[in-house]
Amino acid sequence: MDKTFTLEIETRWSDIDAYGHVNNVSLFRFLEIARVKILQREGFDFLNGSVQTLVARAECDYLKPILISDRVVVSMEVSRIGNSSFDLGYLIHNGEGGRYATAKTVMVCFDPVLNNTVAVPQMFRRMAGQE
Amino acid sequence: MDKTFTLEIETRWSDIDAYGHVNNVSLFRFLEIARVKILQREGFDFLNGSVQTLVARAECDYLKPILISDRVVVSMEVSRIGNSSFDLGYLIHNGEGGRYATAKTVMVCFDPVLNNTVAVPQMFRRMAGQE
Amino acid sequence: MDKTFTLEIETRWSDIDAYGHVNNVSLFRFLEIARVKILQREGFDFLNGSVQTLVARAECDYLKPILISDRVVVSMEVSRIGNSSFDLGYLIHNGEGGRYATAKTVMVCFDPVLNNTVAVPQMFRRMAGQE
Amino acid sequence: MDKTFTLEIETRWSDIDAYGHVNNVSLFRFLEIARVKILQREGFDFLNGSVQTLVARAECDYLKPILISDRVVVSMEVSRIGNSSFDLGYLIHNGEGGRYATAKTVMVCFDPVLNNTVAVPQMFRRMAGQE
Repeated sequence: MDKTFTLEIETRWSDIDAYGHVNNVSLFRFLEIARVKILQREGFDFLNGSVQTLVARAECDYLKPILISDRVVVSMEVSRIGNSSFDLGYLIHNGEGGRYATAKTVMVCFDPVLNNTVAVPQMFRRMAGQE
Repeated sequence: MDKTFTLEIETRWSDIDAYGHVNNVSLFRFLEIARVKILQREGFDFLNGSVQTLVARAECDYLKPILISDRVVVSMEVSRIGNSSFDLGYLIHNGEGGRYATAKTVMVCFDPVLNNTVAVPQMFRRMAGQE
Repeated sequence: MDKTFTLEIETRWSDIDAYGHVNNVSLFRFLEIARVKILQREGFDFLNGSVQTLVARAECDYLKPILISDRVVVSMEVSRIGNSSFDLGYLIHNGEGGRYATAKTVMVCFDPVLNNTVAVPQMFRRMAGQE
Repeated sequence: MDKTFTLEIETRWSDIDAYGHVNNVSLFRFLEIARVKILQREGFDFLNGSVQTLVARAECDYLKPILISDRVVVSMEVSRIGNSSFDLGYLIHNGEGGRYATAKTVMVCFDPVLNNTVAVPQMFRRMAGQE
């Protein structure tokens, strides 16, 4: 990944399911935590901004189970920019080369007042290294 | 879908996020609820059986937001059977033709005692209509 | 309980924790599900109404662990009405006399536009059997 | 509080509900996160130890709503020690004197092999400052 943004995840006891591993759905939760916190850090306002970024598609490949004692880090990049949509690529890992999962979400930029899709804000081009 | 299995989902207030819709991650939770309850109904024992079905890949395409008042139904089918893995295809809908999402999970059959993958149990072939 | 309102809960695989029981926090989730669905049924509008009911205090006594295969029912009553607050009493049980937990929440009536507490709406007096 | 143990909580987007605040149930989740991580830090083994600590009662008084941008810290103390049970007292705050909630859980020490309650382990007396 070229322009990669990283967030450490604090796993919760409730992420562990009856099989004793982090539940597969929790990994999508980790993507959301990383996405929200990284984009906030880069200046995006989720609650009061004029643009919402909605998930149009999400996918995850699970490589290795995560245990409660494991360190969990999400690395994220803006991997494609279209007119009103963009892709985020993710690697969930232990910070030392051990990979738990790879994932991707397709995001659509939406204006809730106009009730319509809108152009991808400039900040995502900057994050993608296109300017 | 040929041999389709269906489960109604009871949405929870906590499935709604700050945008007022069912959160995108909750749809993966709905897939899990449907998968567990339908497979239990068909005779699979999640907690005491000799085989575990682990999610190796999950993907979801979001077509339409779900509101708290919407009825939510998951229809599921066994869409592929391999040696030690199989696919489940899902449609999340309102029971009257309105589609919220389509999804797929790739499942791997795992024996926690042998610590290895094992052949797909016969019941999944039956569910796929292959016998 | 005199005027008791009842809701069946659909437990989820994710309610089970690493100890193989329904996690203790999920029981507060069950109270919320029952409260929201029963009050909606009685005419309360959570998202567009002028009054919000906020939880000022919550307490739960755990009597018996809940397993994934257990039937779960919440019975609820309005057990006290004050000026701008009221109490809800709950019994979480199996529908056949087996008790899992008793609980109580103190609710405060709040107007988000006035940004102040307001009088308890008449519907709660009706639910308490006071009219 | 005399012997107080502290943990910072990483709030998640999914802790926010449709009212735009951290949901009241999430605060019980925060208590669990603090309890598990602090006790692990002090040497308690949740998954492979011979003693389980089960929640027999939980209560929380909500003082002030928590927003997504708020810092959240849990301070915890062992506030009572009995034969086979003990109490944990909690303060949820912003690290700078702002209080969000006070809470208490009554914990019972249980041996899953004996299927019976057992004496409170010595480490909790040490945490309470009784030795």
